[in-house]
Amino acid sequence: MSLADSRTAPGAPLRGRPRSEAVERAIVEGVMKLLEEGVPLAELSIERIARTAGVGKATIYRRWSGKEELFVDVVRAAEPPDPELPGTCMRDDLVALLEQLRQRGVVSRTSMILHNVYAQMKSSPKIWCAYHATVIEPRRRLQLEILRRGQRNGELRTDVDVDVLNDILVGPMLVRSVMRPDAELPEGLSEQIVDTVLEGLRPVSSAS
Amino acid sequence: MSLADSRTAPGAPLRGRPRSEAVERAIVEGVMKLLEEGVPLAELSIERIARTAGVGKATIYRRWSGKEELFVDVVRAAEPPDPELPGTCMRDDLVALLEQLRQRGVVSRTSMILHNVYAQMKSSPKIWCAYHATVIEPRRRLQLEILRRGQRNGELRTDVDVDVLNDILVGPMLVRSVMRPDAELPEGLSEQIVDTVLEGLRPVSSAS
Repeated sequence: MSLADSRTAPGAPLRGRPRSEAVERAIVEGVMKLLEEGVPLAELSIERIARTAGVGKATIYRRWSGKEELFVDVVRAAEPPDPELPGTCMRDDLVALLEQLRQRGVVSRTSMILHNVYAQMKSSPKIWCAYHATVIEPRRRLQLEILRRGQRNGELRTDVDVDVLNDILVGPMLVRSVMRPDAELPEGLSEQIVDTVLEGLRPVSSAS
Repeated sequence: MSLADSRTAPGAPLRGRPRSEAVERAIVEGVMKLLEEGVPLAELSIERIARTAGVGKATIYRRWSGKEELFVDVVRAAEPPDPELPGTCMRDDLVALLEQLRQRGVVSRTSMILHNVYAQMKSSPKIWCAYHATVIEPRRRLQLEILRRGQRNGELRTDVDVDVLNDILVGPMLVRSVMRPDAELPEGLSEQIVDTVLEGLRPVSSAS
């Protein structure tokens, strides 16, 4: 199972022939262009997007049910790609997961466009819901699956609810990348968080 | 040191005679009333607040520099009070800190008014900044101080940056209470997070 699978999950438009992909790309890039020009999301009508991309409105509606679904694809196109999980051990899979969150945080700080896209998305409950259903929920299901496998393999304690364990592992990186725009996101942070959380925060000398 | 100290930190209005406190309360409650009636933050002018509270605009401006500062006091009045830290050991102080975050999360789910207040606050960068400076930053400084004391006392590992340790401890509760409105916030969660994070996520049998 790879995170990339989640990209073709519910809500993703059906991909057709190569020519169709080029049209989709033109439409997604059209939305990007408008956002880069500072057009607020509320003024991004399908009509305006169609005009910018040089296609008819029907061409857009054949691919996306509406602005929400289209916008989620725009966000995904601007985000770093989902990682291939090494699948060798839970620790390495967790590092790969956190590394994607870290890179997403780095990109959203350095890319004005992605930064704005996130901000606008959060101000629209419908689009936030669509993003949640097609991107965040599948990613979360994958995280929980990795942890359950870790519990089966004896890599993770089994006396705590897997949801709580997930928040303990992913929480620190989410807090840094999403809630604390001033927090550092240095290379090696993913490894540091995963290893520290797995080992515990008590001084090593007092471990029994 | 108690979290309550941070309430009189920079930005808090100077408290005068008892009569003055009653006026302040009337103003804060006036804002609450308007918010409960569904008036959006953007339409909450000082003039309208003054009219609702039955005071003059000057009375408000004598106490708050503007809408931002006033609104932060409204949020603080609606939030659960800051906890008294037991100060006996790092673990108990951390549980008290997380417990306040948990209760804040519970209240913001059950209280429509506080829920709306947070949502509106986040949509206003100026008010969010003011809240950050007067509520979140002092709380964070206190958290870091507790952890540094824990490192000095041998209760916390010293080989990891204290900022990262703080995110590892507070992150899971923040993620639940702020980012995941569907997540459960049961009693005992604070203890469970703190103890699990301190002990580590590896199975107990494999601890060396």
